[in-house]
Amino acid sequence: MRIIVIGAKGDIGQAVCAELGARHELVMAGRSSGDLRVDIADRSSVEAMYANAGAVDAVVCTAGDVHFSPLADFTSEDFMSTLREKVMGQVNLVLAGLERLPDGGSFTLTSGILDREPIRTGASAATANGALGGFVKAAAIEMSRGLRVNVVSPGLLDVSAPKYGSWFPGHDPVSSRRVGLAYDKSVEGAATGQVIIVD
Amino acid sequence: MRIIVIGAKGDIGQAVCAELGARHELVMAGRSSGDLRVDIADRSSVEAMYANAGAVDAVVCTAGDVHFSPLADFTSEDFMSTLREKVMGQVNLVLAGLERLPDGGSFTLTSGILDREPIRTGASAATANGALGGFVKAAAIEMSRGLRVNVVSPGLLDVSAPKYGSWFPGHDPVSSRRVGLAYDKSVEGAATGQVIIVD
Ligand SMILES: NC(=O)c1ccc[n+]([C@@H]2O[C@H](COP(=O)([O-])OP(=O)(O)OC[C@H]3O[C@@H](n4cnc5c(N)ncnc54)[C@H](OP(=O)(O)O)[C@@H]3O)[C@@H](O)[C@H]2O)c1
Ligand SMILES: NC(=O)c1ccc[n+]([C@@H]2O[C@H](COP(=O)([O-])OP(=O)(O)OC[C@H]3O[C@@H](n4cnc5c(N)ncnc54)[C@H](OP(=O)(O)O)[C@@H]3O)[C@@H](O)[C@H]2O)c1
Repeated sequence: MRIIVIGAKGDIGQAVCAELGARHELVMAGRSSGDLRVDIADRSSVEAMYANAGAVDAVVCTAGDVHFSPLADFTSEDFMSTLREKVMGQVNLVLAGLERLPDGGSFTLTSGILDREPIRTGASAATANGALGGFVKAAAIEMSRGLRVNVVSPGLLDVSAPKYGSWFPGHDPVSSRRVGLAYDKSVEGAATGQVIIVD
Repeated sequence: MRIIVIGAKGDIGQAVCAELGARHELVMAGRSSGDLRVDIADRSSVEAMYANAGAVDAVVCTAGDVHFSPLADFTSEDFMSTLREKVMGQVNLVLAGLERLPDGGSFTLTSGILDREPIRTGASAATANGALGGFVKAAAIEMSRGLRVNVVSPGLLDVSAPKYGSWFPGHDPVSSRRVGLAYDKSVEGAATGQVIIVD
């Protein structure tokens, strides 16, 4: 397959590329890195990315910035930025990609553990993760031509633990290899409308 | 208790007021109806509402406009409007209310069935509902002074079925009285961080 990975140079993106790159042709996209530059929060930028990418069979998104803040200090602007980047950004990839993918194509998005196991400062992250779970469940039933959509929801990755671990007391980091496999489950498998948990 | 109900004149709002009004003093708010006018999507409007409402012990929100559209026709603007109105609007009520509620005060928000049982045209509604479930779970752990937050997730109401029923094939409408009771469970009970389902 020819697969576009948005956020390919990030921690999760690299895990995904390591797993999928062995068997598939990858097009790597990112805001400031990769073969193609895109801002997923901007629908027109997403349209341009697809136009430049050529034909792809599957879309994987591992991008979606989140603002962390103590609940009492959250401004509405900062909270909204998480909804715009992580939720609307990934929804944009689906809405703009619907007519472009071939029959049987798939979208695989990324949420995370924080709506299952909340942490301090994680209110907008949990909101975004819950949103994406609702989205794939509903979007899946309106897809035609065998198109599919899932979201992978990983725990804290081993490679990310040195950076973020102190915010996740007691969390046992998940292996990047298992996270990569979860994306493969979505891309090469037949599931749709699912939250694929990696804990 | 003195309870402010935002969206009081709507279908769910009326069910809530019928249940809570018998035992509590209600302040009714809405965009174009009620004792107080507010646009929950606008944080400054929410701040002004609280300033004008005087002391309240509990906040109930039954407002949150949703845009319905076939997935293939969803514009990013229309999808985003659901996130801004239903998600950010209700989050604004919590963020702006945190320091205003007395010890033991509560927030009760409204989501809905569409992330559990999706329907055609309901992708942004399902996204918003999932978002609110994630939000209350995470926000609850960061609340001090015994403050609480829950979200009620009702099925299609009996009173709303004549308007929307044709979009909900096979849905057995829920009684408005039971929906009102669910808000009472949140306001007078002790639960926090919960999605209170009325199916
Ligand atoms: N790392 C973890 O342990 C973990 C666990 C669970 C969930 N998650 C979630 O997974 C997602 C990715 O996490 P990560 O740790 O892999 O992040 P990361 O290392 O910061 O990488 C994010 C990647 O996405 C790209 N990106 C960000 N915003 C973009 C935008 N608007 N348009 C296009 N590309 C954009 C970045 O590109 P540039 O670098 O070029 O800006 C970068 O390549 C986040 O939503 C995070 O919450 C992470
Ligand atoms: N009805 C159902 O069967 C059902 C079932 C499950 C979930 N829900 C959800 O519950 C929520 C309420 O539904 P409903 O049927 O009761 O709606 P509704 O009858 O249309 O009433 C909504 C109320 O909220 C107010 N409102 C809307 N946007 C507002 C804003 N930005 N700021 C302040 N007030 C605002 C409206 O005020 P004005 O009239 O003055 O504009 C109105 O009083 C929606 O999110 C809906 O998706 C409904």
